[in-house]
Amino acid sequence: MKLLRWGPRGAEKPGLLDAEGQVRDLSAHVSDLAGDAVSLRALDRLRALRPEDLPVVEAERLGACLAWVPNFHCVGLNYARHAAEAGAQPPAEPVLFSKATTALAGPFDPIVIPKGSVKTDWEVELGVVIGAEVEHVSEAEALSCVAGYCVVNDLSERAWQLEGTGQWSKGKSAPGFGPIGPWLVTADEVPDPQDLPLWLDLNGETQQLSSTADMIFSVAEIISYMSRHMRLRPGDIIATGTPEGVGMGQTPQRFLRPGDVLELGVTGLGDQRQTALAWPG
Amino acid sequence: MKLLRWGPRGAEKPGLLDAEGQVRDLSAHVSDLAGDAVSLRALDRLRALRPEDLPVVEAERLGACLAWVPNFHCVGLNYARHAAEAGAQPPAEPVLFSKATTALAGPFDPIVIPKGSVKTDWEVELGVVIGAEVEHVSEAEALSCVAGYCVVNDLSERAWQLEGTGQWSKGKSAPGFGPIGPWLVTADEVPDPQDLPLWLDLNGETQQLSSTADMIFSVAEIISYMSRHMRLRPGDIIATGTPEGVGMGQTPQRFLRPGDVLELGVTGLGDQRQTALAWPG
Repeated sequence: MKLLRWGPRGAEKPGLLDAEGQVRDLSAHVSDLAGDAVSLRALDRLRALRPEDLPVVEAERLGACLAWVPNFHCVGLNYARHAAEAGAQPPAEPVLFSKATTALAGPFDPIVIPKGSVKTDWEVELGVVIGAEVEHVSEAEALSCVAGYCVVNDLSERAWQLEGTGQWSKGKSAPGFGPIGPWLVTADEVPDPQDLPLWLDLNGETQQLSSTADMIFSVAEIISYMSRHMRLRPGDIIATGTPEGVGMGQTPQRFLRPGDVLELGVTGLGDQRQTALAWPG
Repeated sequence: MKLLRWGPRGAEKPGLLDAEGQVRDLSAHVSDLAGDAVSLRALDRLRALRPEDLPVVEAERLGACLAWVPNFHCVGLNYARHAAEAGAQPPAEPVLFSKATTALAGPFDPIVIPKGSVKTDWEVELGVVIGAEVEHVSEAEALSCVAGYCVVNDLSERAWQLEGTGQWSKGKSAPGFGPIGPWLVTADEVPDPQDLPLWLDLNGETQQLSSTADMIFSVAEIISYMSRHMRLRPGDIIATGTPEGVGMGQTPQRFLRPGDVLELGVTGLGDQRQTALAWPG
């Protein structure tokens, strides 16, 4: 299934994309998509529905494919050439940090450059959505805990992330810095999460072009590692790191300016498109 | 008001502590305490109730004073002598990181030492619970966004936090590493959050004894700073840092062992008590 949320911001309803590319309304069957409503068991109930029995709707806007997340976990420096462009060594174990959950946004929503930001940067990533309560899971069993996958743009303010004092999360958490979707693609439709091309264009020019085959730590390794340090739960999202080609890594460095257009995607999971806007103040 | 949650783990109900120290059942008036249910507006509705009209209940256990949190934000190194014992300079700006929200626990629940942990440490802290949507708030206005305050034990696995690769959050996020409560004390009952003694004893011996007067960045400064980097929302919790006296800072270092008993509190916000248990595996 390709699950989605459609409608005006703050008033989205759950839906699914049918085989013909039409949006079907799921709101008679699930109140919204988040938390336990995307557990493996809950997804099995949705899978039993026949798409052709669901009302077709005209969706003028798609929202984030999850209404909220218990945790917006992220993995840093998980592609070797991105670690190099960031001036870092490939890490010996997964580097974990998080985004504020208030960063969630729809896949086509404008990106408002935060007040005072001069280094807003892009990061196309494979997002993994957890479908079960998970602690101490082996790598062999880890993928059986996955509800599905989605595209994530892990937007990053590099001055806030890397300059001055502190940890990374404050440069990852501005409102709108976490577009997810367009769809939550259930795991049964993704035979191998380590064989997915992913790409990002800025104003029509390719910036990032790689494959999840290039990850240092696989999705299964990440989940197993995380589950030894914390409990994962249904609806948690994990952004699994970005390949090379971010603005910070270029010579000269390049960051988002008002009017810039980002297009990004992961093969099989759909595409996002965002226009950068100046802070309105 | 002193708001709380009572009942068996996973089946807690909302309540309040009356002036005689009795627990009164609030479940007819609010489904649970979390998110928008602790917004300033929602708290005003609860404040209009007369405690003597609410049923008295026998509460054998108190749970976390919030059922869930949108974000479990933390501030590091916010007391000068704790920064020194951690081998760090006092930071130039608030150091932000987060705990997984699955770390939440009740104030009297046992602390299960994580599998493989040899450096589980304690940190008594003032917790701040946000009561509004907050972006770009001034220091002067920041405290008007606070729903209330609570005690937090920011339990920390120091090897996972500080050794090896990565950021702090993985050492802060194990299940049970975030006891909050016993009460969410609404802001009207805390005239000055910068004048609160806080303390922690291990097996009856004082380890931490300080005052929120010793914070490097005040609650108002923290909220204002955070609100320039992210959106805060009702029910978010911010653990505002710990004073000196953690186990890592002692000579020799001392960490929790099975059977150890922690008692901790913040004056006016109540006390916690936790017994450390070995990993059951």
